[in-house]
Amino acid sequence: MVFFRNDYGQGCIEPVMKLLIESNDQSNPGYGEDNYSKKAAEILQSKFPDTPADIQFVVSGTLTNISVIRHLLKHYQAVISCDTAHIYIHEAGAIEAAGHKIIPVPHANGKLTAAAVERLIQDIENRISFLLVPKLVYISNTTEMGTVYTRKELEELHAVCQKYNLYMFIDGARMGTALMSGVDYTLNDLAKWCDVFTIGATKNGALFGEAVCITNPELKNYFRFSQKQSGAILAKGWLIGLQFIGLFENDDFYRCAKHANDMAREIQNEIIKLGYPLYMKSNTNLTFVVLNEIQYQYLKERVDFEIWSRWDNDYIIRLVSSWHTKPDEVEYLKVYLQEAMAKSIQAQTIQEEVEEITTAVTKI
Amino acid sequence: MVFFRNDYGQGCIEPVMKLLIESNDQSNPGYGEDNYSKKAAEILQSKFPDTPADIQFVVSGTLTNISVIRHLLKHYQAVISCDTAHIYIHEAGAIEAAGHKIIPVPHANGKLTAAAVERLIQDIENRISFLLVPKLVYISNTTEMGTVYTRKELEELHAVCQKYNLYMFIDGARMGTALMSGVDYTLNDLAKWCDVFTIGATKNGALFGEAVCITNPELKNYFRFSQKQSGAILAKGWLIGLQFIGLFENDDFYRCAKHANDMAREIQNEIIKLGYPLYMKSNTNLTFVVLNEIQYQYLKERVDFEIWSRWDNDYIIRLVSSWHTKPDEVEYLKVYLQEAMAKSIQAQTIQEEVEEITTAVTKI
Amino acid sequence: MVFFRNDYGQGCIEPVMKLLIESNDQSNPGYGEDNYSKKAAEILQSKFPDTPADIQFVVSGTLTNISVIRHLLKHYQAVISCDTAHIYIHEAGAIEAAGHKIIPVPHANGKLTAAAVERLIQDIENRISFLLVPKLVYISNTTEMGTVYTRKELEELHAVCQKYNLYMFIDGARMGTALMSGVDYTLNDLAKWCDVFTIGATKNGALFGEAVCITNPELKNYFRFSQKQSGAILAKGWLIGLQFIGLFENDDFYRCAKHANDMAREIQNEIIKLGYPLYMKSNTNLTFVVLNEIQYQYLKERVDFEIWSRWDNDYIIRLVSSWHTKPDEVEYLKVYLQEAMAKSIQAQTIQEEVEEITTAVTKI
Amino acid sequence: MVFFRNDYGQGCIEPVMKLLIESNDQSNPGYGEDNYSKKAAEILQSKFPDTPADIQFVVSGTLTNISVIRHLLKHYQAVISCDTAHIYIHEAGAIEAAGHKIIPVPHANGKLTAAAVERLIQDIENRISFLLVPKLVYISNTTEMGTVYTRKELEELHAVCQKYNLYMFIDGARMGTALMSGVDYTLNDLAKWCDVFTIGATKNGALFGEAVCITNPELKNYFRFSQKQSGAILAKGWLIGLQFIGLFENDDFYRCAKHANDMAREIQNEIIKLGYPLYMKSNTNLTFVVLNEIQYQYLKERVDFEIWSRWDNDYIIRLVSSWHTKPDEVEYLKVYLQEAMAKSIQAQTIQEEVEEITTAVTKI
Repeated sequence: MVFFRNDYGQGCIEPVMKLLIESNDQSNPGYGEDNYSKKAAEILQSKFPDTPADIQFVVSGTLTNISVIRHLLKHYQAVISCDTAHIYIHEAGAIEAAGHKIIPVPHANGKLTAAAVERLIQDIENRISFLLVPKLVYISNTTEMGTVYTRKELEELHAVCQKYNLYMFIDGARMGTALMSGVDYTLNDLAKWCDVFTIGATKNGALFGEAVCITNPELKNYFRFSQKQSGAILAKGWLIGLQFIGLFENDDFYRCAKHANDMAREIQNEIIKLGYPLYMKSNTNLTFVVLNEIQYQYLKERVDFEIWSRWDNDYIIRLVSSWHTKPDEVEYLKVYLQEAMAKSIQAQTIQEEVEEITTAVTKI
Repeated sequence: MVFFRNDYGQGCIEPVMKLLIESNDQSNPGYGEDNYSKKAAEILQSKFPDTPADIQFVVSGTLTNISVIRHLLKHYQAVISCDTAHIYIHEAGAIEAAGHKIIPVPHANGKLTAAAVERLIQDIENRISFLLVPKLVYISNTTEMGTVYTRKELEELHAVCQKYNLYMFIDGARMGTALMSGVDYTLNDLAKWCDVFTIGATKNGALFGEAVCITNPELKNYFRFSQKQSGAILAKGWLIGLQFIGLFENDDFYRCAKHANDMAREIQNEIIKLGYPLYMKSNTNLTFVVLNEIQYQYLKERVDFEIWSRWDNDYIIRLVSSWHTKPDEVEYLKVYLQEAMAKSIQAQTIQEEVEEITTAVTKI
Repeated sequence: MVFFRNDYGQGCIEPVMKLLIESNDQSNPGYGEDNYSKKAAEILQSKFPDTPADIQFVVSGTLTNISVIRHLLKHYQAVISCDTAHIYIHEAGAIEAAGHKIIPVPHANGKLTAAAVERLIQDIENRISFLLVPKLVYISNTTEMGTVYTRKELEELHAVCQKYNLYMFIDGARMGTALMSGVDYTLNDLAKWCDVFTIGATKNGALFGEAVCITNPELKNYFRFSQKQSGAILAKGWLIGLQFIGLFENDDFYRCAKHANDMAREIQNEIIKLGYPLYMKSNTNLTFVVLNEIQYQYLKERVDFEIWSRWDNDYIIRLVSSWHTKPDEVEYLKVYLQEAMAKSIQAQTIQEEVEEITTAVTKI
Repeated sequence: MVFFRNDYGQGCIEPVMKLLIESNDQSNPGYGEDNYSKKAAEILQSKFPDTPADIQFVVSGTLTNISVIRHLLKHYQAVISCDTAHIYIHEAGAIEAAGHKIIPVPHANGKLTAAAVERLIQDIENRISFLLVPKLVYISNTTEMGTVYTRKELEELHAVCQKYNLYMFIDGARMGTALMSGVDYTLNDLAKWCDVFTIGATKNGALFGEAVCITNPELKNYFRFSQKQSGAILAKGWLIGLQFIGLFENDDFYRCAKHANDMAREIQNEIIKLGYPLYMKSNTNLTFVVLNEIQYQYLKERVDFEIWSRWDNDYIIRLVSSWHTKPDEVEYLKVYLQEAMAKSIQAQTIQEEVEEITTAVTKI
């Protein structure tokens, strides 16, 4: 069984573990007021020097979204996201539980477009849609579909947010793979396009941890209270700080993300070569393939993956590579994909022959 | 200007006003613990004798939805409604503000179908959709589109709720027109198909007031606390009780609803006769017509109505009749509709002639 | 049975009823966008001309508190009130249900003092009290105990709010009796000391209705969305507007409040004369008396009142006069109070005699 | 500087770190559906075999309280805790942010008593207190003041909960020190007295982690959804599971707690011997001492501790020992305490002499 289920299925990279072990006997102030967290914030800030941020650390992604959105919005304000966003479909109603409606907008390749935001705002202003006050545009980059926003798309989203006085929040749970996917922008650019963004460590080499970077000066104050109220401050907060040090001190964060993307590209190329339909073209570590029943049955015995959705009788499955994926595992996967395709073609050929014979027999 | 903007644009029927005046100098216990409210509850209960209910009175519709849904659900539970439901689009995120996600399901003629509910539940169980626990099926009858659920549709919804252990809540803000639209069921039937339903007075002859009828014994306790916590108990609660007495004592409630439907039928017939496209065929007091620019401009100077939506360059408008609509007003409306159509046809003819001439000229 | 249970036990004054009847057949836009509401807002604004306000109308007091507090606060912010405030003890957790902690501070005569606010803030800043961000100071004037804030007290509260950047919200559910209690300030003064205040009609001559006056310019926008989201907008919103016109057009609001206070003063004087202990000295229409068992049993058969609390074996009861209280009723109440006292003295005398005899007998 | 600031200031015990290292390269299912979590649950369950529980793991204490309370309560239900409970004062309004009022009841030695619960319920039923529906009794054991509930106290609380149909939730963030404080009950007893309890690892040898044990069968279902909605499920959930294995496999959990208590006893004995006033007699690892200014100034340069509160000019400080506290550190602390006391006595003597001389001089 080779593991392509997700990018949070193993522990952490060595430099992170090393720091965990080294720090284990030290005494540290709690709740993120320690020196590791301070140093981690400085290192992160150095990656986007043009935009001073308040940087805080949170254990997990859902908690990050809850505490950021609760921090930004007043009760009467709503969130705009695309309909494939995990805050809309995969977080058990966590944002609504915090009191805010998420207005879903149809995605384009897993992405939210400025045009879709503009259309929604116009419809609301013309009173021919939701009676609501949208205030926050939420996107994830890398998206849940493995796609990545281009510079132009982000600039347009930034512009539409400016135009309508909306906050923009970039969920970077998979920021690493986005930045290493060949885009022509860096964290330093991205920081200018939004009011808050996050950098995810959980899926890229750490045991856990998300860094929340608040760049809008009006939103910096009191975030720690929003965090505390959401249960999003770890008692031994230095554990997150030191993991970010471990990831960024020697740019392992980028190396890990690049590796995950490289592995995925190889997989995706093989998939294309073999003639499997891709559900969506991905530039990062998430690959969505369509399998028929035979292929699915063959692969599920050999590969650990998630079913993303059904398409009539077919399966859309998600194959995820990560910092931890080994070239060997990719080789195995490629072999299994070849065999599954072969089996499926063979089955089809037999079926066609049977049908031919049946037809022939019928004619007699 | 004739008024077809909504069914809550005037005061109340005479018997209601009479009771308001009569009771004005009496002393009554507050917060709905008065004799008017008791008597009103008894009269309502007599309309569905087979299903003993806890009946409480709330000032308005949004408050009713907030307090009922907050009462029924635990935090982790979600609501299923169709995507045209006003709780989904027109209540400013009130249900989400109370902490609950509303999962929108595509409507069929403004209605939620049992099949759509079943599909959603299956998808969630198969983990290929929302990660959530739906618990409450919300429908409005009459729907926001003026359509009415058939006996079969309600029985199927009831069955699917039983099958998956879901609550069913029927919002009867326009229950009167639903019951008087020619359906083969009564309140006594309807009460059996759900856990809670409401009977709206605001839109059918009273100044304000919704009756909440809780039929599921497990949900009866503590509703008054949910009400109080939602701000949904009126200090002078007898004011709602007596209005329901005024509406139901001599069945004016049914008479008012029938009148509203009758007026609407006449309007709708004229619309069909004149060849306007109907956006949706309605059986009740809401009529949705599609107007072109010329028709729209002509009518908006003469008729008070709401734009429901835009369709490219056309307007979908809503014409609403009510207990208060006078036959005269309908006659005026019919004339205006005729004139608008004539103007529009004339304009089109002229345009066609111009085009013809232009073409002729071009050919020369 | 004479009625001294509360100040919301009867309908409305004649000018209000007159407008209700007159307007009954008119057509009006819904949701408070009507001309009555506009005119009512203008009349109210003319009472505090120095401070331009956004004035909106809400059906009831709890709804007012919910929608105002939800409108003002971000999630992480808390409310300071005194421990006798009804938002703290009598609204079923409505404010907490909206997500905000109320920090109770010990009252002084039913009032919150600037000193108590300052002490709390200091303790929180020194981290030796709640870990929280208080942002809103809530007071009611008249208080729940019938006492009234002096000019000096309000100025001090205003100053402490300015000092610590807190909002101040004055709940005026009984604003009328406060203003007519002999204070040396008017609405025009009061409007300057706070960010929001309300003027209550329910308890002073109307069927229902509270006017929310938002004076802080930063808080004016979007209040109608907060209202809608809280279910606090009435469909037939003109019904509240016209009641405020009826109350304020000829200053009946002030006349009603003065009458209620006058009646209460007479009652309180009698109580003092008869030697009943007052639980708290009141300047308005609420009187809190301590009764022993005999007095209580005698009165409860003749007077409709509320028990406020118990004190060992004694009862603290609340006697409330209102715009509707008739001099006759006060006369009856006075007689009952005299009789109850006489009965109680007589019983005590007998008991003393019995004890004397018993002692005498024992000695033999 | 010796560290007595808290019991979450260092990493984890060796067996925990060992498992972290060992598991680092393995692949595991996410969100707590791994074998470590399963095994950890089994080990924990074996400690209270009489009461089958649903056992889930949460990262932190505040998150545990949020997700448990959100899971248990319907919107209209409230929590009873004593006024020293951290959910009431130290969690930034997290429970109220989830929509629930906490009714504070005066503590007795940091504990909630059955009598206090009964009194509150009676007052509410008699309508002379909060208008509310309390449903959940919350206690922490060990309490925030270092005291521990006796068997009798817990049995009485259990009985009052049964009597009034209340849930009982025991927050065991410091369960270890409670169980090792010499009480005559075990986890197996305690599990029978409540509906939910937790076992805290963060403060007793692990990096982080709380085990939620739901024993009431009606409350077991769907807890994982409440967790997810609260952001309380860790992606790499096995990290918590394995820490509990590390703590419980060889009963290090008990050994750690005993050690913390032993260290505290030695400190407390010294404090008593030296004549410092104890703020509260503790049986566990938390010691609250009263210091005057001189003592405080002397100690704060040498010992890392928290100020708990002020008492006029004195300081109440908290000294916390833990699994990590070394006998050496305790020795240092004892010496500092002796020196601080000596300094303070010396200063007092000098002051008295000065006063004496001043008096003598004045007399001349």
